[in-house]
Amino acid sequence: MVVGIDNAVTATKSTISSAKKTPPTLSSDSVINFARGDPTMYESYWRKLGDRCSMVISGNDLMSYFSNPGNLCWFLMPELDHAIRRLHGVVRNAIADDDRFIVVGTGSTQLFHALLYALSSPNEPEPISVVAAAPFYSSYPEETEFLRSGLYKWAGDAYSFNKDGPYIEVVTSPNNPDGAIRGAVVNRKGGKLIHDLAYYWPQYTPITGRANYDVMLFTFSKATGHAGSRIGWVIVKDKEIATKMVKFIELNSIGVSKESQLRAAKILGVISDDCLNSGPNKEENFFEYGQHLMSERWEKLREVVKRNGVFSLPKYSPDYCNFSGEYTDHNPAYAWLKSKEGLNSDNLLREHKIVTRGGTKFGVGSKYTRISMLSSDDEFNLLLERLSAIKVTTNGNY
Amino acid sequence: MVVGIDNAVTATKSTISSAKKTPPTLSSDSVINFARGDPTMYESYWRKLGDRCSMVISGNDLMSYFSNPGNLCWFLMPELDHAIRRLHGVVRNAIADDDRFIVVGTGSTQLFHALLYALSSPNEPEPISVVAAAPFYSSYPEETEFLRSGLYKWAGDAYSFNKDGPYIEVVTSPNNPDGAIRGAVVNRKGGKLIHDLAYYWPQYTPITGRANYDVMLFTFSKATGHAGSRIGWVIVKDKEIATKMVKFIELNSIGVSKESQLRAAKILGVISDDCLNSGPNKEENFFEYGQHLMSERWEKLREVVKRNGVFSLPKYSPDYCNFSGEYTDHNPAYAWLKSKEGLNSDNLLREHKIVTRGGTKFGVGSKYTRISMLSSDDEFNLLLERLSAIKVTTNGNY
Repeated sequence: MVVGIDNAVTATKSTISSAKKTPPTLSSDSVINFARGDPTMYESYWRKLGDRCSMVISGNDLMSYFSNPGNLCWFLMPELDHAIRRLHGVVRNAIADDDRFIVVGTGSTQLFHALLYALSSPNEPEPISVVAAAPFYSSYPEETEFLRSGLYKWAGDAYSFNKDGPYIEVVTSPNNPDGAIRGAVVNRKGGKLIHDLAYYWPQYTPITGRANYDVMLFTFSKATGHAGSRIGWVIVKDKEIATKMVKFIELNSIGVSKESQLRAAKILGVISDDCLNSGPNKEENFFEYGQHLMSERWEKLREVVKRNGVFSLPKYSPDYCNFSGEYTDHNPAYAWLKSKEGLNSDNLLREHKIVTRGGTKFGVGSKYTRISMLSSDDEFNLLLERLSAIKVTTNGNY
Repeated sequence: MVVGIDNAVTATKSTISSAKKTPPTLSSDSVINFARGDPTMYESYWRKLGDRCSMVISGNDLMSYFSNPGNLCWFLMPELDHAIRRLHGVVRNAIADDDRFIVVGTGSTQLFHALLYALSSPNEPEPISVVAAAPFYSSYPEETEFLRSGLYKWAGDAYSFNKDGPYIEVVTSPNNPDGAIRGAVVNRKGGKLIHDLAYYWPQYTPITGRANYDVMLFTFSKATGHAGSRIGWVIVKDKEIATKMVKFIELNSIGVSKESQLRAAKILGVISDDCLNSGPNKEENFFEYGQHLMSERWEKLREVVKRNGVFSLPKYSPDYCNFSGEYTDHNPAYAWLKSKEGLNSDNLLREHKIVTRGGTKFGVGSKYTRISMLSSDDEFNLLLERLSAIKVTTNGNY
């Protein structure tokens, strides 16, 4: 199928090279953006792996709408299905045995919508309430509300939810923005839970057990850093829910990019191979690399924050990680910064040319703000430098 | 960036080979499915092109969420933007000059949703009516209705629409299912038009002019046959509409697969190159190939339908095609079959192991049914064979 590969490479090199923009040079004047969780910090790891993760796609590959017509999720490629189940088995972070259904989506965002559709019903007298404990992921409210659906509606902070009847609670653990390990909060009859486990991977948190919830949401973006591929997956126990999710994705986009699925399968497969390699040529696997890098960054950040005394950070206790076989620290994908003096943290940091996402977007006060820990090394170092420069002046101003 | 390509190919060959299932052998007992528009008939063309359309993606490519942060559509890859505008210029089927915005989507289906969102308003007292002239694309009603949006609602056949106030009319031309060339039907104040031009390409219809509507929807699936990539695009004049569409795709899936975008850019680019090639080595370009193949299929189908006398097909007059520089026939992607005796066409064909999509799904009677003309050669030949075998018996039954 792959004929005359030299030509293919020649022809394609130009395509991809031009797709890779040189990042703008950072200067002391540059505004640096930490508001988004763009996981560019993993790029150097994948570059180091060279051709082991390369894939070649010919013009006549992957043309049909269908990936696996006999499967409930007919647009899920069997290679990705296999790679997902295998990786969860290797990492031991979730039960993905063959009796569970896997539904693939265009990122976990499309799957969040698919879940709202699957867990609600057109036969109910009013839209089902959707809640999450504050601070919650800043996009949940708008994603739930923006189409003014009659099936579901955003009902805010789970801690203050006191309506009778069915509801959906989104439990994000480790939590975005604050890295907390969480359980359901409402715990009432008629509740349906979405467990968003996007960050339940060894680089961010100790793997303390195999998650075994009804509905578990994961995303390629945060697992490996491949945000541009837009691949997410849900592991679901109930066939009816899986069927409704598949229906949603049919009606929303008639399936999910096969190119991305195949690439995700390849990359997840390489990670599993490396994790299982105990031979003499064993190198640092992806999660070990990520864990070391995140650990180092958190140490540096804590040091700077401690030294300047303006902010505080959440504290986490180490836990035994089943994946690494040792006690490891929590190194969340975001730093949840709190201004000690109760000032607006986001505004304060913007004055120092650091763009973050303020606490009000997460359903809490403006003394909090969220900083991505997943940026490139250059940007992260500049962040440390600028944070160091924020000092309390003698009159109490910053 | 692509290092040790031999290894990459070795590693990847197995991945893609296993992704390509051998199609089940067709026997005289096989039920054949023509209900879907899976464009598998183009595979052999792309296979013939060999490595000219191959692309290599390394593990560290395409990782960021962002494709072009300075662009209104920040997730659209510049390569695809360029390839789309260039192809429309070459084919002369639509104006895609630099003053128009291009928004990419996960297939044209996601863009249809984005358009409903962009053309409606949360400030209106009631949902905006969405109409299309019957027979209309069978998915429009369900796509519009399934989330019970308070922003828009399906209002049925445009011919019988007589409500005052704003509305959205979807104009599909050439039309799915019947191949008709169409204009707007309602033509009242407050109307907003979506022109779905998925089939306005030379293999299906003569290109009679450069379409210049406010909102024009295209899809990679039907243009080139790459349905598995889930790439569609909209050319839009108004900045505010483009901005709202981008917002929809942000909230629905945070962008569109970069792997698919880059592959679409590559393939559209090869088509443009070949169309522009007037050198001595000029070979049949993609649209010439498609036009010949569709023309041949339609001739055979008309012959069989004429001979057995059970059904009729729409008639179209040839038109001058600006792309090919000659009069060409309309060769729609679907055959819109009508049973002469007013029987249920879909049921009748199912008895002969041919699955189609019945007229009621398109807003008209069951004497009509839609047959995909885009299947593989083997399936299409079996279709002709089975249609030939349907005969009126002496008692008037089939």
